[in-house]
Amino acid sequence: MGDSPENPDFAGDVLRLVEQAKEMQDSAASLISRTTLEEDALRQRLASLDSHINSLRNSKHADDKLEEELIKVRYILSEGDAAAFLPSKSHGKFLRMFLGPINVRANRKDLKLKVKEEYNNIKDRTAYLFLFFPSLLLVLRSWIWNGCLPALPVQLYQAWLLYLYTALALRENILRVNGSDIRPWWIKHHYYAMAMALISLTWEIEKGPDCSQKQRGVQLYLIWAIFQGVAMILQNRYQRQRLYTRITLGKASRMDVVWGETAGVDGQLLLLFPVLFILQGFEACVGVLLLKTAVTRFVFEWQVITCGILLIIMAVGNFSNTVQTLITKSRVKAKMKKDCR
Amino acid sequence: MGDSPENPDFAGDVLRLVEQAKEMQDSAASLISRTTLEEDALRQRLASLDSHINSLRNSKHADDKLEEELIKVRYILSEGDAAAFLPSKSHGKFLRMFLGPINVRANRKDLKLKVKEEYNNIKDRTAYLFLFFPSLLLVLRSWIWNGCLPALPVQLYQAWLLYLYTALALRENILRVNGSDIRPWWIKHHYYAMAMALISLTWEIEKGPDCSQKQRGVQLYLIWAIFQGVAMILQNRYQRQRLYTRITLGKASRMDVVWGETAGVDGQLLLLFPVLFILQGFEACVGVLLLKTAVTRFVFEWQVITCGILLIIMAVGNFSNTVQTLITKSRVKAKMKKDCR
Repeated sequence: MGDSPENPDFAGDVLRLVEQAKEMQDSAASLISRTTLEEDALRQRLASLDSHINSLRNSKHADDKLEEELIKVRYILSEGDAAAFLPSKSHGKFLRMFLGPINVRANRKDLKLKVKEEYNNIKDRTAYLFLFFPSLLLVLRSWIWNGCLPALPVQLYQAWLLYLYTALALRENILRVNGSDIRPWWIKHHYYAMAMALISLTWEIEKGPDCSQKQRGVQLYLIWAIFQGVAMILQNRYQRQRLYTRITLGKASRMDVVWGETAGVDGQLLLLFPVLFILQGFEACVGVLLLKTAVTRFVFEWQVITCGILLIIMAVGNFSNTVQTLITKSRVKAKMKKDCR
Repeated sequence: MGDSPENPDFAGDVLRLVEQAKEMQDSAASLISRTTLEEDALRQRLASLDSHINSLRNSKHADDKLEEELIKVRYILSEGDAAAFLPSKSHGKFLRMFLGPINVRANRKDLKLKVKEEYNNIKDRTAYLFLFFPSLLLVLRSWIWNGCLPALPVQLYQAWLLYLYTALALRENILRVNGSDIRPWWIKHHYYAMAMALISLTWEIEKGPDCSQKQRGVQLYLIWAIFQGVAMILQNRYQRQRLYTRITLGKASRMDVVWGETAGVDGQLLLLFPVLFILQGFEACVGVLLLKTAVTRFVFEWQVITCGILLIIMAVGNFSNTVQTLITKSRVKAKMKKDCR
């Protein structure tokens, strides 16, 4: 090994770098420990404030004006910079299964809003694709494929569904960690949808003489998907409007995700609710038809049975969640009327 | 609306809460803006130091001792608290596709190490399952199923593979963002494996008179998976040892992931390299056999052809990456010999 540096300038440079690196390492360490201390202190104070607010809201002394004040306090905390230090919701099993113990909480508010905005965008794009892909398959089926779907395009569609539901479930879990009030059912709903997409991939789509009869399940599923696309477009439009309305009213934090939830702008509801209920009825119908096919054909195709059961579960869950939303909504209305008297 | 509070104590409580909430909101805002400023300043200084180090390392003046000093500087920066403020690698398309724009960089070092440790644990568990599942399927096939695999257990296995490769690809991308030097090929390798698991789900596994002939592809795949399990166990054990050796030698940061990479502890290499090369040869073989099946049977099964091609691509990629590692390793050895002379 060379003992003396061949180039004194270079050696000096290196030594200076070593010094600088050590210095920066020290300032990084002190910055981190200082920040951690301050953040932990703030976190503790916020946690106690948070539980104090909760106990006051649960007490029965509350009159309407004070109740409103408490809602305002909540709003200040959940919408402002303090939100980053509020007690975090647990990450949940699903995120841990896919991502491990990484922290997906956004500290900066701009990032948080970006996550939410991007989620809304993907929902919009998805709704149109949801309308487009199954329509295309059904149109090609009668125009080119003589009433008999080939396997590959259907499987590509199913693979896309699997990716989509996985990505949506991951993003919704991330939004939940970041303080969104998304209803647990809508996340669970996407787990069921993931399972169904996975199962449908293993479903044999045979060409044959009795093709149109055998493919009846797939066909029904595609028609249901088109309905779903229409409902999603209506919901997205409605929910964005409602979200902005609620934000201006100060009732919701901007991290609220309201996919499938339906309380607010009255005019569009006249269209949205019937579509939602028809969709849910149709979903249950497809499920029952699938089960019937499995029973009458005397063929034990576990995919058909499982998909049937999953569809019925999803229909029932969607229905009861929509009804619950309607009840909440009518209660809010009743309260508003009472207040205005 | 009630104008005067019914309960003065309660009203006072609420007003105090509003005050406290505003106060905390202010301190959160100032804490965040202060921290952001300091972090950005540190980030800038580190970025310039980093590029300075790079330019010195690329210059030809370097003698061995100064080179070593530069490696030490790098090590200080990448292992210490400063690492959190080094220029971040981009998140990449894969993470954006599944998670959106959320930041998965861990600032605290303990969390970073937890992510890495958990990744190592999942790799260990996976290796044993990789050995267990296909072995079980093959044993049951000859003991209970009379040489003919039923579809459901195989598809459950394939679904597990799809989940596993997706989770591994996500975690490796997260590790990469957190400063791990994982070779890009090993992540790409998992994308291909994901595609293959997805495709194999759509593969018809028929029962029938010529079952054992038709299932030859699946059978070969399962045997290959058993080999893979053995190789993974050897690799994991070897790499952990090597990682710890390298950490004590100060050559690697602890975020290095070395799945498939193979430079280090000599004794175990005598076993590992032959196993790896046999595995890669076998992988290519299975790929070629699949292509041959597709050609000779004159049935266009796109799944068979695509899986064949994917296996061959993976075999070639694995081989060339292993060889590259061997070359790096022998260069390091030659250098060490030269240094010791």
